[in-house]
Amino acid sequence: MKIKLTMTALFLAAFFTIGFAKPQPEKQATWIWYPGDYDIWLGNKMQNRRTERGAFFPPFWRLYSHYVLVDYMKKADLPEAEEIEIYAEGPYNVKIDSKMLPGMPRKVTVPAGSHTINIKVYSQEVVPALYVKGSLLASDSSWTVTYEDKEWIDASGKVSDQSGTVRLNASSWNFNDPLSPPSKFKLPVEPMAAVSITKENGGALVDFGKETFGFIKLHGVAGQGMVNLYYGESREEALSLEFCETLDRIEITEENAGDLTLDHSKAFRYVNIQTEGNVRYDSVSMLYEYLSLEYRGKFRCNDEQINTIWDVAAYTMHLTSREFFIDGIKRDRWVWSGDANQSYLMNYYLFFDSPSVKRTINLLRGKDPVSSHINTIMDYSFYWFISIYDYYLHSGDKAFIQEIYPKMKSMMDFCLGRRNQHGLMEGLPGDWVFIDWADGLSKQGEVSFEQLLFARSLEAMALCAEITGDLESNKYYKELASDLKEKLFAIYWSDEKNALVHSRVNGRPTSDVTRYANMFAIFFDYLDNGKKQAVKEHVLLNDSVQRITTPYMRFYELEALSAMGEQDYVLREIKDYWGGMLDLGATSFWEKYDPAESGVEHYAMYGRPFGKSLCHAWGASPIYLLGKYFLGVKPTAPGYREYVIEPELGGLEWMEGAVPTPEGDIRVFVNDRRISVSADTGLGILRFKSRIKPSVKGATIRSVGERVYEIAIEKGKEYEIRYRR
Amino acid sequence: MKIKLTMTALFLAAFFTIGFAKPQPEKQATWIWYPGDYDIWLGNKMQNRRTERGAFFPPFWRLYSHYVLVDYMKKADLPEAEEIEIYAEGPYNVKIDSKMLPGMPRKVTVPAGSHTINIKVYSQEVVPALYVKGSLLASDSSWTVTYEDKEWIDASGKVSDQSGTVRLNASSWNFNDPLSPPSKFKLPVEPMAAVSITKENGGALVDFGKETFGFIKLHGVAGQGMVNLYYGESREEALSLEFCETLDRIEITEENAGDLTLDHSKAFRYVNIQTEGNVRYDSVSMLYEYLSLEYRGKFRCNDEQINTIWDVAAYTMHLTSREFFIDGIKRDRWVWSGDANQSYLMNYYLFFDSPSVKRTINLLRGKDPVSSHINTIMDYSFYWFISIYDYYLHSGDKAFIQEIYPKMKSMMDFCLGRRNQHGLMEGLPGDWVFIDWADGLSKQGEVSFEQLLFARSLEAMALCAEITGDLESNKYYKELASDLKEKLFAIYWSDEKNALVHSRVNGRPTSDVTRYANMFAIFFDYLDNGKKQAVKEHVLLNDSVQRITTPYMRFYELEALSAMGEQDYVLREIKDYWGGMLDLGATSFWEKYDPAESGVEHYAMYGRPFGKSLCHAWGASPIYLLGKYFLGVKPTAPGYREYVIEPELGGLEWMEGAVPTPEGDIRVFVNDRRISVSADTGLGILRFKSRIKPSVKGATIRSVGERVYEIAIEKGKEYEIRYRR
Repeated sequence: MKIKLTMTALFLAAFFTIGFAKPQPEKQATWIWYPGDYDIWLGNKMQNRRTERGAFFPPFWRLYSHYVLVDYMKKADLPEAEEIEIYAEGPYNVKIDSKMLPGMPRKVTVPAGSHTINIKVYSQEVVPALYVKGSLLASDSSWTVTYEDKEWIDASGKVSDQSGTVRLNASSWNFNDPLSPPSKFKLPVEPMAAVSITKENGGALVDFGKETFGFIKLHGVAGQGMVNLYYGESREEALSLEFCETLDRIEITEENAGDLTLDHSKAFRYVNIQTEGNVRYDSVSMLYEYLSLEYRGKFRCNDEQINTIWDVAAYTMHLTSREFFIDGIKRDRWVWSGDANQSYLMNYYLFFDSPSVKRTINLLRGKDPVSSHINTIMDYSFYWFISIYDYYLHSGDKAFIQEIYPKMKSMMDFCLGRRNQHGLMEGLPGDWVFIDWADGLSKQGEVSFEQLLFARSLEAMALCAEITGDLESNKYYKELASDLKEKLFAIYWSDEKNALVHSRVNGRPTSDVTRYANMFAIFFDYLDNGKKQAVKEHVLLNDSVQRITTPYMRFYELEALSAMGEQDYVLREIKDYWGGMLDLGATSFWEKYDPAESGVEHYAMYGRPFGKSLCHAWGASPIYLLGKYFLGVKPTAPGYREYVIEPELGGLEWMEGAVPTPEGDIRVFVNDRRISVSADTGLGILRFKSRIKPSVKGATIRSVGERVYEIAIEKGKEYEIRYRR
Repeated sequence: MKIKLTMTALFLAAFFTIGFAKPQPEKQATWIWYPGDYDIWLGNKMQNRRTERGAFFPPFWRLYSHYVLVDYMKKADLPEAEEIEIYAEGPYNVKIDSKMLPGMPRKVTVPAGSHTINIKVYSQEVVPALYVKGSLLASDSSWTVTYEDKEWIDASGKVSDQSGTVRLNASSWNFNDPLSPPSKFKLPVEPMAAVSITKENGGALVDFGKETFGFIKLHGVAGQGMVNLYYGESREEALSLEFCETLDRIEITEENAGDLTLDHSKAFRYVNIQTEGNVRYDSVSMLYEYLSLEYRGKFRCNDEQINTIWDVAAYTMHLTSREFFIDGIKRDRWVWSGDANQSYLMNYYLFFDSPSVKRTINLLRGKDPVSSHINTIMDYSFYWFISIYDYYLHSGDKAFIQEIYPKMKSMMDFCLGRRNQHGLMEGLPGDWVFIDWADGLSKQGEVSFEQLLFARSLEAMALCAEITGDLESNKYYKELASDLKEKLFAIYWSDEKNALVHSRVNGRPTSDVTRYANMFAIFFDYLDNGKKQAVKEHVLLNDSVQRITTPYMRFYELEALSAMGEQDYVLREIKDYWGGMLDLGATSFWEKYDPAESGVEHYAMYGRPFGKSLCHAWGASPIYLLGKYFLGVKPTAPGYREYVIEPELGGLEWMEGAVPTPEGDIRVFVNDRRISVSADTGLGILRFKSRIKPSVKGATIRSVGERVYEIAIEKGKEYEIRYRR
């Protein structure tokens, strides 16, 4: 909100050494902490909540911790004395101009004039967060924070100059209530009723009608004995006492009789309730737990199956967007970098919730020193780099790049230190080379796909180095990227195969061709036009190349095809593949789907009959494909300061939708003779094909190729174009 | 304890792949954790307990945290099935041969045969420690532990090989009771009565007769209002409501009436109790809190003042030996590397408590990455390196060197990265160059003292590299040390001054001479004999060189003089300086003592009238000097496998004492005609001067110089030598 500056305010703004343009008597304070620390702490809490058949099942990678003792600082020049109120998660002390106040004061009056306020907070258990209620001194990201203040005093009482102390701007989320500190944060819940309850095998099979997440609630529990709950994403899973992945066993006593809400959240559509002893209950419901998010992205078209796919994808995405973007809600309930990378991209076309992106990026990275790849997976380290630049492109959030860049550098140092003698990445002991779940996929030697991601990561480093003004590193990473790209083609490109081959083992390129490196090379724009067409024909549209059976890699496969204008093909694939899951009764999209399987085969994975997750974030890619390649909205400058709209109906009769941006939405309607667009942000280019010269009021149409036209889109205006496909 | 091997045991020992020589049905289990983690956690707890006039007063340096999720592993070949009982500080899961058991089982039966047991424990709040009751599987340091197990499974259910996982042997202390986990550890307490209570200024001044530490207890408290306690290490401090360093204010209500023990431990001799409202109480006592330690070192002589000095030094040392070796009990109650280095050395001549040394070394180091010097002080980083080799020399504990060596390397990398263009250490922003509390002491430029400690640190690195078998680094550090030592003399030695000068500023050596570098150069044995004598005459015994007024540096000054055979002088100095504090009523030794001051001047420091600590570990050095340079017992091979006894009466008529070693004591009695020694350990050399050829039964006397003789000392034998001084 912009407010008029009064004369006083203008005077103050000129007078104060600490810049603030708009002094407000009641500035909103918020809980603040050391950057990244809350994300790490909350992540530990969340990722350690997974159970498997009652067993505690935490991640197998390194978890980090917050700094237990931090010093917050604010320098301000106060026109008059200001009383502040201090709330902290842990014991604290307060210094004004390096002089410590006695006790642990809740209220402090800071005298008028130029002062430095330090508040030091300690907490081992939770993040030592701080909330300061005040006007000019209200806690927000203008406060700085450090984990070592180096403030010693000499024997005569003189205070050190602290010039060696590194301070960062404090981080926050949206915890604005002093009485609701960050450690108490919980996702909201909402009561939901069951759709049906049937008797099965001596128990009750409760169906909530669709995949969901939360806490089962038993009403009117009485008697003594056990209640055993067997959860199922499928009916079959809930009925399998022996193999269902999650369960709860609760002993009922007088203590917990009455209405009983389970302690642990679970993912399920069905729950099979079995009692022992004389336990009975009146009814069953649940508390649906969710992250409060706005569905800003929208998509509707003439094809109802596509509309349903979009809706189910959006729901899948919502279920897996929680404290962080997780992989799946039944399993692993962990944060995986490769999975999250897709969630970020889908998020840009659905919620555009930047705090969730930043929390997830921070959690994945943890702290220094780096002792393994992110999630121990080589490709997942690379997705992490790439995702940061993607975030910048969509959000324009330079402050976050500044904050995370030192951690990008140490992460990249780790990667660079693991190159082999040819400067390529190859799995070392402890490295998981993942790529995809696919039978017989070789991870041996120097895999081309990994080098491709590595090159893209180096480019992301170069860009972020430039953003932060680290020009020396910018040059360094640019050179590394360009060297690696040269090697990539010299080593892996086969003129015979018209493709990048899969790997080089013992110094010899293999003759295997897989889709992975080839499809990424297309949308990374690493191929010239001839090679692109060759790859499309000989790899992407070639059924003899091993098919992809995970929505995870279908995401990129269809992205590559979309980037090459194959929207018609992509639409059919979406209908076939995602439609195929719907036909099998999916109410959220799956971790893996192989149309060749049948019946309960669909639910098995990892050697377990119900090991597969039936609600997996990477299943939601139609959100992204439809927004980016059908509506065709893409940022071309950070934060949508500039963007393009290149709509492609891909066989649809009409479509309409909205794409969220940091400053409002971009709206698009298209049918075969009319395009309507309007935008709340930036400077756009609408680019489209037309067999006739199109007409539009109030804008100039440029012809930019054979039957290709462009219109500049200004924010706040409505454009309606008449054209002919 | 050695036990006879039965035939079965011999068979098992030959049969098992995992080595254990003595299978015991009831092996003692102990709580185990990731090496260093408990020390960090306990250190955070302790170092954040300091208050100053009621204000929370934590350290200004970086604090670390434990790993929140760790995986313990034991491989064993069981002759028969074994039932184990599991206790953990946090949720855990159990895997046998990579297969996770359901739930969180307390009891598990591991079948006979070769198996791998993994137990993974999570805890954010406290260290995720583990206790396994069992026979072959009982938890101890034969279990390994990691903070990232890298145990992923592929889509078909196959478990990764985990070959990239780094596992260390688990650490423990002495927590052998499964129901007393490490997080519940508290130092023991003992009730102590006051010596006198007098009315002063409307309150009660309670005197406990000597410096002490613990919790004040008020008996029979009644009424309503406040009790205010003002603590004093001196009478004057307790009576100074305005300037006493520590205080407590408790509101008395019906809730806490009766017997009231204060929550926070304090250091004091006096407590001034003032009440408000109608509060009254019957009596006052205290709970003395201490670390349970055995006074193994002993010293007695004909001079009662020296005996008192030894006793008060031992008490000072005991008061400051707590969860860790701290600096002072009133303040800072923190762990400082320079202070601790002296505590370690004194400990070797008093308690020989190795767990306390290891805890303190671990806490000081924290974890990677290194972002500042230890305690932010350059010299304190160097003392840390030196203290580790010292610990090895005294204890012979190779396992600890193996464990800490990687952290020594990263700490040294940090130091090496801060050298200036001449390869010398100079204070950078954020570095505290401390040396000593002394008026006008320059810290500018390249200070010779720092280079000297740096060279010694590099030598310690070289030695530890050799111990761990890192021969390449051994060579590297050796070369660095030798280069630096050459520079040291080339730059700082002044033939004109007969000394190392204090510093070089802007490329020019200064003409100042201070004692610091010169005295260290003597006992580091960096000087040839001519230079040693020159330094002794022109620096150490030269009153025009600025005097040292801290017991801290007197420790090293008197060590240097002792190393040069000046025991007579040193004894007079001890009597004068430490005797001087006793004359002023000291019941423990001080942080600083300047005989030129008088009255309450003695209590002031840091610009505060009672800022000085009157119980400071570094005040206890007579313990060390008397044991090492009067009784003359010194290890010459790790863990006292070899040692020398070079007794020097230094003007005493007789002395007797004991020096502890890892395997028993070394006992010495000396007067002017008789020396008696006996030892429980190693191979010793008794070296002494005699004007006549000495006589001894059952041993051969070798003459090794003019009037210098040696006898080889075997353990378990008594030696009595007749000689003449």
